[in-house]
Amino acid sequence: MVEINGTVADGFETVREEFAAFVGGEQADYEGQLCVFQDGRRVVDLWAGDRDALYAVYSSTKGAAHLVVALLVQDGILELDREVAYYWPEFAAAGKSAVTLRELISHRAGLIGPDSAYTGAELSDDRALAERLAAQRPFWRPGTAFGYHALVIGALTGEVVFRATGSTLQEVYEERVRAPYGLDFFLGLPEELEGRFRSVQPMLPTPVQQAELDAALTGPDSLGSISFNQRGPEPGSLEEFANLRAVRAAGQASAGGIASARGLAGMYAAAISEVDGRAPLLKPDTIAEVGQIHSVGRDLIIRDHGAFGLGFQATADKYPFLGAGSFGHSGAAGSQAFADPRAGLTYGYTRRRFAYPGGAAPENERLAYVVHRAARAV
Amino acid sequence: MVEINGTVADGFETVREEFAAFVGGEQADYEGQLCVFQDGRRVVDLWAGDRDALYAVYSSTKGAAHLVVALLVQDGILELDREVAYYWPEFAAAGKSAVTLRELISHRAGLIGPDSAYTGAELSDDRALAERLAAQRPFWRPGTAFGYHALVIGALTGEVVFRATGSTLQEVYEERVRAPYGLDFFLGLPEELEGRFRSVQPMLPTPVQQAELDAALTGPDSLGSISFNQRGPEPGSLEEFANLRAVRAAGQASAGGIASARGLAGMYAAAISEVDGRAPLLKPDTIAEVGQIHSVGRDLIIRDHGAFGLGFQATADKYPFLGAGSFGHSGAAGSQAFADPRAGLTYGYTRRRFAYPGGAAPENERLAYVVHRAARAV
Amino acid sequence: MVEINGTVADGFETVREEFAAFVGGEQADYEGQLCVFQDGRRVVDLWAGDRDALYAVYSSTKGAAHLVVALLVQDGILELDREVAYYWPEFAAAGKSAVTLRELISHRAGLIGPDSAYTGAELSDDRALAERLAAQRPFWRPGTAFGYHALVIGALTGEVVFRATGSTLQEVYEERVRAPYGLDFFLGLPEELEGRFRSVQPMLPTPVQQAELDAALTGPDSLGSISFNQRGPEPGSLEEFANLRAVRAAGQASAGGIASARGLAGMYAAAISEVDGRAPLLKPDTIAEVGQIHSVGRDLIIRDHGAFGLGFQATADKYPFLGAGSFGHSGAAGSQAFADPRAGLTYGYTRRRFAYPGGAAPENERLAYVVHRAARAV
Repeated sequence: MVEINGTVADGFETVREEFAAFVGGEQADYEGQLCVFQDGRRVVDLWAGDRDALYAVYSSTKGAAHLVVALLVQDGILELDREVAYYWPEFAAAGKSAVTLRELISHRAGLIGPDSAYTGAELSDDRALAERLAAQRPFWRPGTAFGYHALVIGALTGEVVFRATGSTLQEVYEERVRAPYGLDFFLGLPEELEGRFRSVQPMLPTPVQQAELDAALTGPDSLGSISFNQRGPEPGSLEEFANLRAVRAAGQASAGGIASARGLAGMYAAAISEVDGRAPLLKPDTIAEVGQIHSVGRDLIIRDHGAFGLGFQATADKYPFLGAGSFGHSGAAGSQAFADPRAGLTYGYTRRRFAYPGGAAPENERLAYVVHRAARAV
Repeated sequence: MVEINGTVADGFETVREEFAAFVGGEQADYEGQLCVFQDGRRVVDLWAGDRDALYAVYSSTKGAAHLVVALLVQDGILELDREVAYYWPEFAAAGKSAVTLRELISHRAGLIGPDSAYTGAELSDDRALAERLAAQRPFWRPGTAFGYHALVIGALTGEVVFRATGSTLQEVYEERVRAPYGLDFFLGLPEELEGRFRSVQPMLPTPVQQAELDAALTGPDSLGSISFNQRGPEPGSLEEFANLRAVRAAGQASAGGIASARGLAGMYAAAISEVDGRAPLLKPDTIAEVGQIHSVGRDLIIRDHGAFGLGFQATADKYPFLGAGSFGHSGAAGSQAFADPRAGLTYGYTRRRFAYPGGAAPENERLAYVVHRAARAV
Repeated sequence: MVEINGTVADGFETVREEFAAFVGGEQADYEGQLCVFQDGRRVVDLWAGDRDALYAVYSSTKGAAHLVVALLVQDGILELDREVAYYWPEFAAAGKSAVTLRELISHRAGLIGPDSAYTGAELSDDRALAERLAAQRPFWRPGTAFGYHALVIGALTGEVVFRATGSTLQEVYEERVRAPYGLDFFLGLPEELEGRFRSVQPMLPTPVQQAELDAALTGPDSLGSISFNQRGPEPGSLEEFANLRAVRAAGQASAGGIASARGLAGMYAAAISEVDGRAPLLKPDTIAEVGQIHSVGRDLIIRDHGAFGLGFQATADKYPFLGAGSFGHSGAAGSQAFADPRAGLTYGYTRRRFAYPGGAAPENERLAYVVHRAARAV
């Protein structure tokens, strides 16, 4: 039986119960973490596994990347309604001159991946990715649709950040967000912390689930394969991706982040709340803008309903019990992280083993539900 | 067994049969009315309960509110492609200066409700609502999505009418629509008619239905709760809302209307047909414009497919057997009202008790289907 | 047992097996053809029935019509972002002056059919249809939605072609596409080839299927009936439409094409590949543009998800195993035709008898899947 460790504040006992109930139904080797802040104070800190473990959080990385954008917009360094080409002239090629930063980061530009296959090394190098994408024609007519830029949105965003500031997105993040708060949420995991990283474990689907996954497999040049780089022998599976030290070292801005649940929830707490006497990183207007829904409907890549704010997922649409304007980002192995500004609540969840069917693990819905109920009651 | 009263014209006998068949499956205390006009002539007038009863029609009220807009557009007093702020300067706040009247009334502006909770008194006061909403940031980026402004669209529309004409929407409606035709469809029920009002009865869900309703409950700051004002102790349930005399007296333009089915169908007949020697209120071009589909896809609030014309629901999309350009509006307790201009048909239905699951009661589909078939055959 | 004839190239044996397996489950009188080109070479050529039979391909005709548009755009004779009214001034009526050619051919203009019923003779006469449509108000606000212009998109496109070139779309197609390659895909079947035409056979639905078809029937003025001209006694059913010699002679540009699978696949091969020493008709940029997704989401007419490129269906969205940018068009009796430029693959399928439930016959999915797998493996 898996042991649950950690603490919850008064009023959050139901969260511990729900987490224990969920873990009780998992494999004996389950490892995961759940952390919640309310009004800048840590009120839930639970884990199964090592207290200080760090996990690959995949696309939850995009939340860190776009917190950087939000800060630069707030500072007036980036303007959302400027054309991307204003910052990055090469981007104007192939009919993209009118695409704005706002459209780019709400997954509307249609540059979901390189036109031809790319290697694992290229995948971990945001600037090389950006260079290839700048020359390309969008896969859909910008303005008519949106779709998930699964492995490249951070490269595109990052190039804008680099052109505007002279620093990489990862550097700005480290300087302005991670280091000041000592967050366990790294875009670029230092060598000396490698000992805390727990390698990703593959999904263990049932035979029925495996059949469904196989049925969803697409050809190597399909829209889905291009977005998720399922195109050839390299870099192999998503599991292998984060298990490469090069990827963790680079902190690829779409999916290369390494974090604990404490780091995830802590970052969102720093964004929206006073934490340890520091003012929130984001002003109310900025919080409202990044959580404002910008893309909603059928995601051309996911082939299902989806909703994005500015670089963040519109978590308020995914979990309708949350407050309007909730924003965050989930990740492939099952992680989830978000802020519900109206409740003063932030949430982080990590797990080691890929959950079926991919993306935010199903347990997040029940965990977020009890967290939100508890937070509203205290 | 519930008694059915009233008359149908030759050729509409199937409508009486279908109404009787439906009522036969309802509770013993069922009360409701069904009325149909064809080419301006009343061809169906059926009821269970009192002949002269008046019911709360909730959002069917929006049809009356937007008939006023259609008339003012037809007169050249309002222009659909003007910015709302042209008429109402305060509306320009918080990034809304470019929102047009056309976008506003097709539920695209993103001002689904006040940012913070409001009382029952505020809910019944359209001008107070409008003042709060003018200052707010939209919940989604205008132009990227649409969603049902359940309790405030009439306040927003009404403020535009007031600014442009110096009269309230309710006054214009009374003078130009209700009084000339003596319609039993009131935005502001006179004290002396209170004796005909039959108070709203709550839904009687089965245990399975109740469980589904409970599962759909959202947190108090969710998008759904903001649109439907399910935020706190006041004003309590939607049932209580219309049971307040203050609400009926004000005739709140989103959901405060009181009507009979005769009034509902009669208003749409006056809109599209010659009635008692009077020319139709709307010219063919105006009829075509208000029924033209302006918003279609996933409604961010309803979380399902929806379609709106200009202030009206695109009833042609909801009931695909109807003619293209059919427009109308249903209401929470189960009412439905629409015009099918190609068939010269108008339809009104009211019921006293809330129907599961809310919105247009399910029986409207079968009733409208036989009505349409009968009308096309005569 | 139905006999399968024809040949497959090395590596495409699985296609023959799948075709045989499918045909084995069909009626004893099944007739159909499957043809595939890879890199301009015919690699699959299978049929049940007569080797040289020609079938009505209905909306697969739209692929030929819009290949003409692609050629004229490539030549600089048509410009996608010009207003339609620039070429065809009468089109500006009723609020359509701003509609561009790009919007028109991505099914966004909202002119899904004539406002009032039309006869079979009118249906086969593209120029008469165009004249009626030019005067009309769109059924939805251009720019807010899209929907399938089932029987008139070719008339609208064709009028633009005629105004810009002085030749009918059918003439341009014959001169630039069909004749040079000797394709068995006719917009206007010569009298002397009538002997090869196999008349359309009606669908044979099961009782359950028939009940579903009946339930989907709509009123004569509904959006669906207007698009599919199910409005009155003429022209009767879609089956009868193509069985009229007048329709086949005219080669109505929306649905009047007559072809073999060899002709369908051959046309797409000519479009994207070198064939018999001739350069591809379309340059890479044009190929990318016509396959770029322009309309995606709920189709207002089909009442389901759909995706269009420029006059072509975005086949990459329908069959997600295909390469991004795949484009083509299916037809009512069950035909399907497309190009997958990334795989150098083109596909044509015809059948004589209408397949349930209409549109691309279900077997196309399994056939296209094995075709694509085989093509990627060789």
